[in-house]
Amino acid sequence: MKAEIITIGDEILIGQIVDSNSAFLGKQLNKIGIEVYQITSVQDEEEQIINTLKDASKRVDLIITTGGLGPTKDDLTKKTLCTYFKDELILNKQVLEHIEDIFTKYVSTPILPANKTQAYLPSKSTALFNRYGTAPGMWIEKNQVVYISLPGVPYEMKSLMRDEVIPRLKQRFQTPYIIHKTVVTYGLGESAIADLIEDWEEALPKHIKLAYLPNFGRVRLRLSTRGNHEDQLYEELNQQIDKLHQYIGHIIKGFEDELSLEENIAQLLTQKQLSISTAESCTGGKIASKLSDIPGASAFLKGGLISYATSAKADALGIASEVIDKHSVVSAEITVEMAKKSLAMFHSDLAIATTGNAGPTKGDSKAEIGTVYIALADKQGVNVQKYSFGNQRERVTYKAVNKSLELIYDWIIQKKQ
Amino acid sequence: MKAEIITIGDEILIGQIVDSNSAFLGKQLNKIGIEVYQITSVQDEEEQIINTLKDASKRVDLIITTGGLGPTKDDLTKKTLCTYFKDELILNKQVLEHIEDIFTKYVSTPILPANKTQAYLPSKSTALFNRYGTAPGMWIEKNQVVYISLPGVPYEMKSLMRDEVIPRLKQRFQTPYIIHKTVVTYGLGESAIADLIEDWEEALPKHIKLAYLPNFGRVRLRLSTRGNHEDQLYEELNQQIDKLHQYIGHIIKGFEDELSLEENIAQLLTQKQLSISTAESCTGGKIASKLSDIPGASAFLKGGLISYATSAKADALGIASEVIDKHSVVSAEITVEMAKKSLAMFHSDLAIATTGNAGPTKGDSKAEIGTVYIALADKQGVNVQKYSFGNQRERVTYKAVNKSLELIYDWIIQKKQ
Repeated sequence: MKAEIITIGDEILIGQIVDSNSAFLGKQLNKIGIEVYQITSVQDEEEQIINTLKDASKRVDLIITTGGLGPTKDDLTKKTLCTYFKDELILNKQVLEHIEDIFTKYVSTPILPANKTQAYLPSKSTALFNRYGTAPGMWIEKNQVVYISLPGVPYEMKSLMRDEVIPRLKQRFQTPYIIHKTVVTYGLGESAIADLIEDWEEALPKHIKLAYLPNFGRVRLRLSTRGNHEDQLYEELNQQIDKLHQYIGHIIKGFEDELSLEENIAQLLTQKQLSISTAESCTGGKIASKLSDIPGASAFLKGGLISYATSAKADALGIASEVIDKHSVVSAEITVEMAKKSLAMFHSDLAIATTGNAGPTKGDSKAEIGTVYIALADKQGVNVQKYSFGNQRERVTYKAVNKSLELIYDWIIQKKQ
Repeated sequence: MKAEIITIGDEILIGQIVDSNSAFLGKQLNKIGIEVYQITSVQDEEEQIINTLKDASKRVDLIITTGGLGPTKDDLTKKTLCTYFKDELILNKQVLEHIEDIFTKYVSTPILPANKTQAYLPSKSTALFNRYGTAPGMWIEKNQVVYISLPGVPYEMKSLMRDEVIPRLKQRFQTPYIIHKTVVTYGLGESAIADLIEDWEEALPKHIKLAYLPNFGRVRLRLSTRGNHEDQLYEELNQQIDKLHQYIGHIIKGFEDELSLEENIAQLLTQKQLSISTAESCTGGKIASKLSDIPGASAFLKGGLISYATSAKADALGIASEVIDKHSVVSAEITVEMAKKSLAMFHSDLAIATTGNAGPTKGDSKAEIGTVYIALADKQGVNVQKYSFGNQRERVTYKAVNKSLELIYDWIIQKKQ
C-alpha cells in the first residue's frame, strides 16, 4: 500500500514557506502501515496539477493533496479536481451551515459570497468535516485509487487527518505494520560508527533497512521493517538492537521514535516530581522554549532567565562587572554563576546555564567563535563543561541546545529519587 | 529557465525530518531568476531516483538533488548518478586532501576507508568544494540539462549553494528577474480582504500573479512578476501596491520579502539604538529566541525572564502570592507586573510580557483556554491587551508570539528618537 503526497502552492516552490505538512502526513500514514512513496510539490497551475495526479495514480494507491482550498481566486484545487474527474461542484448544505456557524461565532466581519463558495464540492466527493476552518476535506475514489484533498493550513490539515482521514483509511484498507526504531548515539561520526558495526550491519536480515542520520552532533541509526505481526516485528528489531549494543553500547543514548528527547525529559521529570529552570545566553531561550512546547510543562518547568547582552549578566544576575571583566562573559565562571542564580531564583531541582559565542563576530567575549560553556547546578553542586561547536552560527546554537538537553537527560537518569 | 529539486532520502518520506533545504533552494534560485517548477522527494532507491531524474530532465533545464552523499551504505546518490550517466567513479585528489585535512583538524577518530570513498566522483562531474564537510557537491551537464548534486546536511548544502553553485549558475545562464513582493496585513480574513480589493485584483495586469497566504492571524498578499528589467519590475509592483493601499491601507503592516518581521525589528532597534527585554509565560522563551536568532542580537536584546510555573511569578518576579491569587495567574495585572519587572531588571527601553492559557487544560489559571494577555512597558508606562487565540495549543502559542512581534514593531515605528 503506497501513497503519494502532492502539495499545491507556489509558496512552497519559491521558498516562502517550509513544507512541514508532508512530514506530519508521512508519520501518520506510516503509523497505519501506509508507505509514502513520493512527495511532489507543484505550482498553483491546473495543467501541472492534473499531470501530477495522473502520474501519481500510476504509482500509488492513495493520493493526498494539500492546499488550494481557500476562498480566493488563487485557490484552484476544487476546480482542478472537477476537470480531472469530469465532475461539477454542488452545494453541500451541512458544510454551508458549518461555515455560517464559524462566522457567527468567531469572525467579526460578515459572511461573503466567497466564503459560501467553500460549501460547493465536487459531486463525486465525500466531504470531510473541518472543525477548525471553513474549507472541508474531500474523499474521492476512482479506479481503485483513493484521492484525499486537505486544506494547507497546518492545524486544519492535522485535525482532519486525525479525526476524519485516519479512521476512514483504517476501515478501507488492510495494511501491514511499518515499524521504525531509531537509536540515538552521541559522540562519534557516521563513518566511525559504520566501521564499528560493520559485522552487525552485514548480518542484518534483508527485510530490515538501516539508515544513518547525522544531525548537529548526533548520529541516529534508523531500523525499519514491515510485516503483518506487530509484536513479532518489534521483537525482531529489539533483538537486533540488543546485538547492536554489544558493538556501540557506550554511545547509545536512547531511542527517538516514541518520544523526542524533550518529551522523554518531560515525562521523567514529571514522574520523578523534579523541576527545572534555565539561564540562557547563547541559546537565547531555546532550551526553555523546547521544554515549554510540551503540554503539561508547567508541572516541571519553573522558568528561566535569558541574559543575552553582557549588561544583563550584571543587571539581572547580579554578577559584579569586575568578575565578568576578569573571566570574560563567555567563561566557565560566569556560566556557573548563571546556573546557581537560576537555581536560587526559581527554587528548582536542576538549573542549566549556557554561555557561548555563536558568531558571526566575537562581540564582547574573548572566547573563540563556536565555544560554548554549559553548566548544571543542583543542590549538590555545579558542573561545567566547555564545548567547541564549529564556526557556523545556526549550528553552534542548535548543537548547544541539543547538548544541553542531553546533559539534562543524563542528570535525570542518574538522579535517585 | 525552470528547475526541479529532488530530495533523496527515506527520512523525509517517513516524516522523520522536515525538508527545509528545498525552501532555501527555492529562495536562492528565485533570486537569480530561476523558477522552481517542482520539488520531488524520493526514497533511497536506485530505480526510483533514476526514473525521477529522467522525468525531471523532460520538464526542466536544471536539476538539483540533495542527500545520499554520506560515507555509509545507505547513501546511493553517486552510484545512481553513475548508472544514470553511464559513468564510473574516479579519485579526485583535491577532495581527498580536503577530507584528510578535516580529519586532522576536527575529528578525534582516525580516517577510515569509508571516508576516503567520498573522494571518488563520477568522471563526468566537476567537484564543488564543500568547506564544511567531507562530501563534495557535483556538477554534470548532459543534453542541455545541468545536474547538480548536493549533500543533505543543511549548513553544508547552504554554503555550497552560496559559494559554488550560485556564482556558476549566474555565469552559465542568462535568466530574467523574478520579483516577489509580499504585503503583510493583520486583522482581516482572506475572504474579507478579497472582497475589499476585488476591483484592484480584477485590474491587475495578467503578468502579475497574486496569492493569498493566511497564517496564524495574518494574511500575506504576494505579488509576483518576471522580466528582463529589474528596476521596471519593481516600479510596476510598487505602483500596484500604492493602489492597494487605497483599498486596505489600514491593515497593511509592512512587507515580508526582504526582511522578516524579526529582522525588521532587529534593524530598527539597532538603528534607533533601542533595547528590548522580555518576560514570557505562555510563550516560554519563544519571543527572545526569535530575536536572538538574528546575528548581532546582542546590540538590542538585553535578556528575558521566563516565568512558566505559577511559583516562578512569585519567586522570580517578586509578585506577592496574594496578588496572584486575587487576579489569577493569567490576567492583565500579572502581565503588567511582569513587563515592569523585566524593564527594571534589564534596564531596557521596551519590555514585552505574555501570560496566557494555551491548553490543553486550564492549569492554575482561571482564564479560558486561548486567552492571552500581552503587555508592553517603557519609561512612559504600560499597556496591556487581552486576546483570544482559539483552542489549539500550538496555534495559541504562535499567534501570541506573532502578535507580540507586531506590537513590538508598532511600538518602534511610533517611537520618536
